[in-house]
Amino acid sequence: MQRHFDLDGILNMERRPRATLMNYLSGFKSVNLIGTQNNEEINNLAVFNSVIHIGSNPPFLGFILRPTTVERHTYENIQATQFYTINAVTQAIYTKSHQTSAKYAADQSEFAEVDLTPEFKDDFHAPYVAESPIQFGLQLEEVQHNKCNDTLLVIGKVQHLYLPENSYTKEGHFDLSEYEVVTIGGLYTYYKTEKIERLKYAQPK
Amino acid sequence: MQRHFDLDGILNMERRPRATLMNYLSGFKSVNLIGTQNNEEINNLAVFNSVIHIGSNPPFLGFILRPTTVERHTYENIQATQFYTINAVTQAIYTKSHQTSAKYAADQSEFAEVDLTPEFKDDFHAPYVAESPIQFGLQLEEVQHNKCNDTLLVIGKVQHLYLPENSYTKEGHFDLSEYEVVTIGGLYTYYKTEKIERLKYAQPK
Repeated sequence: MQRHFDLDGILNMERRPRATLMNYLSGFKSVNLIGTQNNEEINNLAVFNSVIHIGSNPPFLGFILRPTTVERHTYENIQATQFYTINAVTQAIYTKSHQTSAKYAADQSEFAEVDLTPEFKDDFHAPYVAESPIQFGLQLEEVQHNKCNDTLLVIGKVQHLYLPENSYTKEGHFDLSEYEVVTIGGLYTYYKTEKIERLKYAQPK
Repeated sequence: MQRHFDLDGILNMERRPRATLMNYLSGFKSVNLIGTQNNEEINNLAVFNSVIHIGSNPPFLGFILRPTTVERHTYENIQATQFYTINAVTQAIYTKSHQTSAKYAADQSEFAEVDLTPEFKDDFHAPYVAESPIQFGLQLEEVQHNKCNDTLLVIGKVQHLYLPENSYTKEGHFDLSEYEVVTIGGLYTYYKTEKIERLKYAQPK
């Protein structure tokens, strides 16, 4: 049996269970830490579940920004400096990563609060997460304002990429589960993964 | 040891390995089938790895559209009818789902070609996937054109939602792994998941 909601049925749900449920139903999501620095050189770190691939040539990543207090520090810093990092979250650091979503003051660094290590390299104006196996350094490229609910799609161009040595094949395959990258359902539930199968480029049969 | 790429290093990679690699590195992605119907009432079905949560109140889902042949049928149909469905992909149907990405002609229905079942209900002008445990019916709301690479962010408003009876808690928690929803790394590699832990709303310690 199926449970049916029409739009009114969804709108009539209680606010918190609705937000919790709706965040699960688009499917599994990426978990990434975005590192920034403000003009007082305080390092900010925030977990995002909405980082997506926008393009490979040139390389672009995007993420959805909701107008909330926590995420606002990240966006203010990106606007001020134009630079930020995106770092994959693994089984070893997902609890620390999740804790960055607590509402710390602007003069507190989440790196120190949750015990993750800011890493600077290439004179890049944003901190990487030293514990992360996939580290992107990005420059702000474009911001789209979604009129339907005032969210933003923030797109950055990849300036630097750090990966573990010998982590990918000649064809470009990278096994996220081998590096224990986690995925999230909804806002709170973390999962590890197991590879089922790598399929091929599909052709009509 | 780490392998470092700067932007030129990425731009100088061969096209196909670069696209393959870059698609993995944003992390795990959702896998969903988008169902549409054209004006000749031919049912189209295409797999997307970019469906994301945009909002809960009102409920919005988005996906990234690349200007390719396969995806163009989906977008032409959405523009023509304004309606489409988004359906979760499970372990039972991921190979059929993946096969929808082959380049079928506009007068071929991927439902028939890959052996999935179109399901119509509520007089909704788009086919659901009967085999899917999470079915959304959406109306086109907004399209953002990303100038950086001519991709589109297509946002729809949820008009209908079908879930298995008793599949979510009073608080709104839904266990995607219990329904064997899959996740994808890159463009080809499918993973099953195992729950590690459900964390709580984070508070400063």
